[in-house]
Amino acid sequence: MSDQMETAPETGPEFDPTASSLTGEVDPAVMEELLGIRSSIDNFDATLVYLLAERFKATQRVGYLKARHKLPPSDPGREAEQIQRLHRLAREAHLDPVFAEKFLNFIIDEVIRHHQAISESHANGEVAAPAAAHQSRQS
Amino acid sequence: MSDQMETAPETGPEFDPTASSLTGEVDPAVMEELLGIRSSIDNFDATLVYLLAERFKATQRVGYLKARHKLPPSDPGREAEQIQRLHRLAREAHLDPVFAEKFLNFIIDEVIRHHQAISESHANGEVAAPAAAHQSRQS
Repeated sequence: MSDQMETAPETGPEFDPTASSLTGEVDPAVMEELLGIRSSIDNFDATLVYLLAERFKATQRVGYLKARHKLPPSDPGREAEQIQRLHRLAREAHLDPVFAEKFLNFIIDEVIRHHQAISESHANGEVAAPAAAHQSRQS
Repeated sequence: MSDQMETAPETGPEFDPTASSLTGEVDPAVMEELLGIRSSIDNFDATLVYLLAERFKATQRVGYLKARHKLPPSDPGREAEQIQRLHRLAREAHLDPVFAEKFLNFIIDEVIRHHQAISESHANGEVAAPAAAHQSRQS
């Protein structure tokens, strides 16, 4: 909680949801419609950030588990299932399956990068910094 | 709905949440702990897919609005605010702010790519394919 207090709240005064380089150059009715949609996009983005943070907490636990038990970072059988499922979910959600896979790979690349840090810090007997909140692999 | 019926349901028989190349090579108790965490990751991924699909629906509406009123695709004032807010949200969520910005840029790259298609199809008087469910810019 104290960490949250150290930073401005999500809807803090620093953020202006109406900020736009188009202000004054666009029909007010059009601008109002644009800002209405952007307000939804802002809500989706806040949800995405908190959801990703939780996902990385889970992959961090996987990373520590694998490091503790000296398990290989990669699990091809798991990853193949994840990708197949993601394609199906994307089709159900009317999201481009190709983009969905690119998205998963984007996240995997990040967690692999951080998982290497976990393995190394574990090998060195170090305690990983809590700040590194999304260390470890995705699977 | 019919589209959803054409594809296997999210928890369809095709997906095996226990699939792993580690099966049989790991202490059963460790495997059980791993599968428990993976089950949460699978839920987060399903949520991410549906959430991204909604976000892209919103950016698609922005794309059509901008194309209809011949507004510039880019809005630097908006984007600066979004990035600043995203950094703040990431700190609150204990998510690496650098990753959060990389994530936003990853999505922006995708929507820019698709927004160009919207502008072109609009310029050609075409109706964009509904299948292209995440056309348009992010802002």
